[in-house]
Amino acid sequence: MNVQYILELLGTFTFAISGALAVQGKSEDWFGAGFTGFITAIGGGTLRDILLGSYPLTWITDIYIIYTILIAIFAASIFNKVLQRLRRTLSIFDTLGIALFTVAGVEKALSLGVRWEIAAIMGMFSAVFGGVIRDTLINETPVLFRREIYASACLAGGLFYVFLSFLDVPRDWNFICSASFIVTVRILAVKYHINFPKL
Amino acid sequence: MNVQYILELLGTFTFAISGALAVQGKSEDWFGAGFTGFITAIGGGTLRDILLGSYPLTWITDIYIIYTILIAIFAASIFNKVLQRLRRTLSIFDTLGIALFTVAGVEKALSLGVRWEIAAIMGMFSAVFGGVIRDTLINETPVLFRREIYASACLAGGLFYVFLSFLDVPRDWNFICSASFIVTVRILAVKYHINFPKL
Amino acid sequence: MNVQYILELLGTFTFAISGALAVQGKSEDWFGAGFTGFITAIGGGTLRDILLGSYPLTWITDIYIIYTILIAIFAASIFNKVLQRLRRTLSIFDTLGIALFTVAGVEKALSLGVRWEIAAIMGMFSAVFGGVIRDTLINETPVLFRREIYASACLAGGLFYVFLSFLDVPRDWNFICSASFIVTVRILAVKYHINFPKL
Repeated sequence: MNVQYILELLGTFTFAISGALAVQGKSEDWFGAGFTGFITAIGGGTLRDILLGSYPLTWITDIYIIYTILIAIFAASIFNKVLQRLRRTLSIFDTLGIALFTVAGVEKALSLGVRWEIAAIMGMFSAVFGGVIRDTLINETPVLFRREIYASACLAGGLFYVFLSFLDVPRDWNFICSASFIVTVRILAVKYHINFPKL
Repeated sequence: MNVQYILELLGTFTFAISGALAVQGKSEDWFGAGFTGFITAIGGGTLRDILLGSYPLTWITDIYIIYTILIAIFAASIFNKVLQRLRRTLSIFDTLGIALFTVAGVEKALSLGVRWEIAAIMGMFSAVFGGVIRDTLINETPVLFRREIYASACLAGGLFYVFLSFLDVPRDWNFICSASFIVTVRILAVKYHINFPKL
Repeated sequence: MNVQYILELLGTFTFAISGALAVQGKSEDWFGAGFTGFITAIGGGTLRDILLGSYPLTWITDIYIIYTILIAIFAASIFNKVLQRLRRTLSIFDTLGIALFTVAGVEKALSLGVRWEIAAIMGMFSAVFGGVIRDTLINETPVLFRREIYASACLAGGLFYVFLSFLDVPRDWNFICSASFIVTVRILAVKYHINFPKL
């Protein structure tokens, strides 16, 4: 589906930018920033595919992913200051990114015939592990340990997708509903500071 | 073998608890704790299987593993205070966990036809890498860099298993002897503060 | 080719030493040092092969790699003080190591039929990810975020190899030229403090 593919490239684009910007003050040059952007963008999907044994990896056969990331890194280095000011907008892009990656991840896992619990987990992994690897590389506490619903919104969205596909909701509608569900949960959580209780 | 399978689930259970409890003070909510518990429980075995190219991964096909981990995380969040006080007992569970994971890892590697040196290393990886990933995620120095015989006990136990299977010791006896060997070495090391010399 | 194989073992040897020495002051015993040396030596090539789905992994079938690493760790623990003083020489070994690993990585990726952009990235990953994993394990900022051309020299060298093979330069000459290119770039960068601009 063309729209889905374009949305996935957009998700990759915003993840690469978030990775490149995250290195600020850690790495001294833009090569390190680009490297981190690259890892952030491909990390989640790569982990999902390795866990599922689904070869070849998407970014190794689809060269557009690499070029999307290169353009994102280039944009991050050129429009650095503007992007830093646009952080809020970017956070909306990031929210869109995790929503799309979750749904695409669940879909891929289901198509490989795994159980629904595993598919939902794979959706969440696709969405959050790029960021987890990024934060580990730059020695920060991973984003999913900071407050506000993040990985849990992805897991809930993944389960929602599984539930709707169980009800035979057509794939395209399911894609849109589940991604919107994740975006809504995340925006509400950030806006009203909703958190899980402490352990 | 039924007993072995139950022991492995028990190892998974205690690893999930140790992961969930480790996040205290790092993650602000119990979702992050559960996530870490999950990664800790599956990390070592997953790395072993990926390195050996042994697909599908166990926890992706055997859904009981996921539910064992969920119950462990649930238990960790309910009995949090009790478990913190039971730390000493838990450390015995952890010791049992690494012993069982080591032996099961060596067995699996040998059954895939790798050399005995590799099998022993795979046993150690199965046992310790869940904890290494856990410590890396929460930005702590990995457990295997702290003093007292830990990973080395697993490697020694793995080599012991290989040695006994070379002597044609029956598989069940070998399993029990090698696991006991690891538990004993580890308990003695903790009790008498035995360490490797500094480099 | 015998010379290439020997050079690769030499690269493995120096990476294992650099890993073992890096743990100084982090790990309290030499087992942790050996563990880190091992991970450093195999990390990059292992990641490359997992990403490419190229099984079985080299070090699992070629036992000489394990023994090369063991000898390196043994050497690191015996000649610890001498090696600390020889750091400058070792850094030349490390430079040789990343050059050889890059070229060998590009070659392997190309032989598996991936695109040239991917092959160059795989070369860089082979060379730098052992060090990245090492630095992540010991909670340091990864070497590639510190100043001075490092990963970028590998990527440039990988692209150079691809370019020469496009010009039908014979494989052996290409191997020597591209590896020399990386060594030269790196030495010049260190000597004249050449860096990428800040982001």
